[in-house]
Amino acid sequence: MTTGPDDTELMPLVAELGRDLGDPDRAHDDLARIVWSCLAEPGDAVAGMLIDAVGAPDALRVARSARPHPVAPDAAGIPSADWSSALQRWRPRMTAPDAGHALRIAAARGIRLLTPADDDWPRAVDDLGPHRPICLWVRGDPAVLGAPAAAVAIVGARAATGYGEHVAAELSAELAGRGIAVVSGGAYGIDGCAHRAALGVGGTTIAVMAGGVERAYPAGHTDLFERIAATGAVISEVPCGGAPTKWRFLARNRVIAALGGATVVVEAGGRSGSLNTAGHAAALGRPLGAVPGPITSASSAGCHRLLREFDARCVTDADEVVELLDPGTLFDDPGLRAAPAVGSAAPPTDDTMRVRDALSRRSRRSAEDIARRAGMSTGDVEARLGLLLLAGEADRNQDGWALGSPRTR
Amino acid sequence: MTTGPDDTELMPLVAELGRDLGDPDRAHDDLARIVWSCLAEPGDAVAGMLIDAVGAPDALRVARSARPHPVAPDAAGIPSADWSSALQRWRPRMTAPDAGHALRIAAARGIRLLTPADDDWPRAVDDLGPHRPICLWVRGDPAVLGAPAAAVAIVGARAATGYGEHVAAELSAELAGRGIAVVSGGAYGIDGCAHRAALGVGGTTIAVMAGGVERAYPAGHTDLFERIAATGAVISEVPCGGAPTKWRFLARNRVIAALGGATVVVEAGGRSGSLNTAGHAAALGRPLGAVPGPITSASSAGCHRLLREFDARCVTDADEVVELLDPGTLFDDPGLRAAPAVGSAAPPTDDTMRVRDALSRRSRRSAEDIARRAGMSTGDVEARLGLLLLAGEADRNQDGWALGSPRTR
Repeated sequence: MTTGPDDTELMPLVAELGRDLGDPDRAHDDLARIVWSCLAEPGDAVAGMLIDAVGAPDALRVARSARPHPVAPDAAGIPSADWSSALQRWRPRMTAPDAGHALRIAAARGIRLLTPADDDWPRAVDDLGPHRPICLWVRGDPAVLGAPAAAVAIVGARAATGYGEHVAAELSAELAGRGIAVVSGGAYGIDGCAHRAALGVGGTTIAVMAGGVERAYPAGHTDLFERIAATGAVISEVPCGGAPTKWRFLARNRVIAALGGATVVVEAGGRSGSLNTAGHAAALGRPLGAVPGPITSASSAGCHRLLREFDARCVTDADEVVELLDPGTLFDDPGLRAAPAVGSAAPPTDDTMRVRDALSRRSRRSAEDIARRAGMSTGDVEARLGLLLLAGEADRNQDGWALGSPRTR
Repeated sequence: MTTGPDDTELMPLVAELGRDLGDPDRAHDDLARIVWSCLAEPGDAVAGMLIDAVGAPDALRVARSARPHPVAPDAAGIPSADWSSALQRWRPRMTAPDAGHALRIAAARGIRLLTPADDDWPRAVDDLGPHRPICLWVRGDPAVLGAPAAAVAIVGARAATGYGEHVAAELSAELAGRGIAVVSGGAYGIDGCAHRAALGVGGTTIAVMAGGVERAYPAGHTDLFERIAATGAVISEVPCGGAPTKWRFLARNRVIAALGGATVVVEAGGRSGSLNTAGHAAALGRPLGAVPGPITSASSAGCHRLLREFDARCVTDADEVVELLDPGTLFDDPGLRAAPAVGSAAPPTDDTMRVRDALSRRSRRSAEDIARRAGMSTGDVEARLGLLLLAGEADRNQDGWALGSPRTR
């Protein structure tokens, strides 16, 4: 078995990415991660466990040694059978020149690299454990990923309706306007509306791609990706030159879910890919919101499924999305706590309503008559009539009480 | 203080309702409950506790004796202060001729009486405890109340939209067609649509009124109430001649909630009266469903509030309403259990998808090339290619593998 391309030859290309070669350990980690990202498909847990256990360069040496079950994978807790099958799936790529290819594209296009050793590495993806990206390729400003600002993932169907697009844009603009980064997948439909609306208010938005970040996929969003990269970031764990395969779209969704402090699904058919993102958010313990829509709309069926079966929270405006980010808000906000109660098993006992019910606009009634009609004591009725008189809702003359007109408010 | 109208004079009128005078205890209970229903407003818990403790006739005697705190209320667990204030609110009605008036209207209009002693008494309202109706006045067939058939309350806004009316009608027709009684409040909008759709499929529907059942309120539903009474029932706890006051509408809602094995709110503004019915259902431990709608529609705001704040279940079709009635259904139905999973934090591992991703329609590729592209072992790729070949999704010749067209399904 070969040992793959000579990594040292790639070092000048790494330098071209603006990486610091002055720290040899760091440089070797960078390069090993780049090679790893060409070797393993996104979310390869065996690769992730091995790298976390011994570091990317040693993990690469162990993988290239291709022994049945060396000490390092064992120490990393990787079962023997998983190790064998991982070696089998990495082997076809061991000799491929993808790393050099990816690096050349990245250097030519000004694409940046982020690894967990970088300050701008988005810590949120670490919650993915062994499934976290090995590295991230960034078109745009890596700083928007490292900033501790709140982020929300807004995702949904490509085949969105006008309703869904309107809602996605409203929510995204409102959230981005409050300084919350909007994360999405750059697709047509809901994703595109969310990105565009965030840009429209001068907010930050991040597009997570399923293929290399130098590709515009879909091609119709070429300009949109340019605009996103100008102030935010277009990112991918797939190296430059990598194709956006179906499988990578699904794997990419876990990164969207991890980057969002909460995930909101705006519109989704019963089998929309955005339900997959929602599933990742739920599995990560991230709050999940779903925007309801007409039950007659197939484009909202997936959202309703999330509400019914996956305990998603029904969200209808940006405030409710912010509550998702910080569930404490709901209970700490006295305004929300003071929302009128929906009712209780005991019938209502609003005596003023009962007295008002017993008044007529046309015929004058005595307090005794009103008490009888209201089913209240005469004393209680007289007290309530006094209050209604003050409010202008009752009127009194020598013939008795009548309904008045409430004072203009 | 007077003792009120001589009850014995009213006995012939009770007989005219078709009640059995041959059983004197039963007849006195009937009459006492009729008088009580004229004396106390709906849901008067002090009246309910006293009647439950000593029976309606003795309760009436105790109330008429008007002692500050006699033995009976004490034994019934009624606090002294509550007893005093109850006496105060009943006093103005002690001398009123309402009972005779109600009985005369009922006899003339063929309106029936139901008390807890009747076989047709709807046991579901007993869950209201001391707030349960003292008796019920029925226009139509009392048997539909006593039948153990399932019932669902469908309620919603008077100011319904075309969407809400459409959904209410669809749900009601489907449920009524399955033999489930549809309970509602007879109002314009959602209520009326629910009643009409149930009638349209020859189903059973019950309208619960806030005033006497001989009144058509709203007047525009005069014909509808006739049609409901012809096969179902128009009922009220308020005696004939009683006005449908605002307060009685709210109290009436608890009866709708109690009669429904589940309550479904179809469309409701943020402060709709149907939220009050929903609150009663929740307080009774009855399952509560809410139909979502566009978040841009004020008519759905109340439903969304129920979903967000009151743990209502999102319902989008009749099957889901049936699940509310019997929550076990959801988990017993293998079809529902087999619904495709939304996803997990681990990335998807559908190897067939990865192999399909790596195939091209235009260029032929070797298994080794495909393995490299898919990030899988050559052996695994060959196994999957075999399956895809069988399904017609892959095509093979001497130059290698390509994407095929799946067989027509």
